[in-house]
Amino acid sequence: MPNCSAITALVPLWPIHRNNRVRRVILSTYQAASGAGAAALEELVESTRASLAGQIYRPKVLPHPYAFNVFNHDTRIDPETGYNEEETKVIRESRKILEDEAIAIGVTCVRVPVLRAHCQAITFECEKPISEAEVRSLLSDAPGVRIVDDRANNYFPMPIDASGQDHVLVGRIRRDLSDASGHSISMFVAADQLLKGAALNAIQIAELLPEHAMA
Amino acid sequence: MPNCSAITALVPLWPIHRNNRVRRVILSTYQAASGAGAAALEELVESTRASLAGQIYRPKVLPHPYAFNVFNHDTRIDPETGYNEEETKVIRESRKILEDEAIAIGVTCVRVPVLRAHCQAITFECEKPISEAEVRSLLSDAPGVRIVDDRANNYFPMPIDASGQDHVLVGRIRRDLSDASGHSISMFVAADQLLKGAALNAIQIAELLPEHAMA
Repeated sequence: MPNCSAITALVPLWPIHRNNRVRRVILSTYQAASGAGAAALEELVESTRASLAGQIYRPKVLPHPYAFNVFNHDTRIDPETGYNEEETKVIRESRKILEDEAIAIGVTCVRVPVLRAHCQAITFECEKPISEAEVRSLLSDAPGVRIVDDRANNYFPMPIDASGQDHVLVGRIRRDLSDASGHSISMFVAADQLLKGAALNAIQIAELLPEHAMA
Repeated sequence: MPNCSAITALVPLWPIHRNNRVRRVILSTYQAASGAGAAALEELVESTRASLAGQIYRPKVLPHPYAFNVFNHDTRIDPETGYNEEETKVIRESRKILEDEAIAIGVTCVRVPVLRAHCQAITFECEKPISEAEVRSLLSDAPGVRIVDDRANNYFPMPIDASGQDHVLVGRIRRDLSDASGHSISMFVAADQLLKGAALNAIQIAELLPEHAMA
């Protein structure tokens, strides 16, 4: 079953990659408690309740206090590379699913005090120049994607909207201002990993790639 | 007074830039309620309390529900570029403070349900190749920086540790795996913007740059 952080990024990156090869991705995650299981979700609720009551709560499931806090993903860190296992999976699975071993991926996986649904800030660079309008067009009828990108009302993908949805919400689609060549786009996504992160996506992507069954 | 997101990034980037020009930065923020003022902080507390009690809370200060949620920074979005004002300030002030109008900056500013202290995932590219060890060495005695980077114990910068501190905590220092050329490093930082985001840093940076008074 593919990793949920990989899948959340790949559902919107795949239709772009098919059209204009994505050669580099830099992404940071904002991951919810639910990805770590029901006990972690309960720990977020109970530790937040304790914090608001001025009580001490000793973490049992996660390595750090979760109430109103942010911390590195709770998987083992490779002592040599400094990458956690979630990040390593994002790199490995993205290359596999996009069928492109050369794709360059930098990733930071972080837990935030959200009950359910992950977010990601994604910057990607394509082989040919790419515009905001092209990305919008490629994503507008892509499977599993819903564009939520209302600049006038400051309304973009949020975990509370993604929860319980079977689409990856994609917004803040804009030029990456750090790449003057026009090859790079930034965006912000939110997806409920309970639905999206596993089975459903495996099916959707497998349908797009019928020749490659997913383990 | 410099913008607090700019300052949080620049305190650790400045000693690197002085040694090996930083030519590109891609950063995502995890910003606390306190940066939006006392009323926003109160709104996070009260809306979280309501959420835990199963009650509806109508946001008054911030544009979106804050309890267990993540949303785009609550400043105006430029309808043309899609960047919010916080992001625009990070770009403008970083160029000014680093005295480098050519520095390429891509930035995503996001609010997370944290009471106090901002985090950032930062990837930067230098003009000459740079190693993890060099970054550690440059930051180990840099003003305003404390390295918190314990891979064995999965212990890195967190808002709860940065709160009330007058240092920017810097950790997860590692090669950016998306740049095979060895010019890029990723890191994760946390800083209390109440102390760090404004006066104190203005002073510290002004001391490093005595010829440039800060407005």
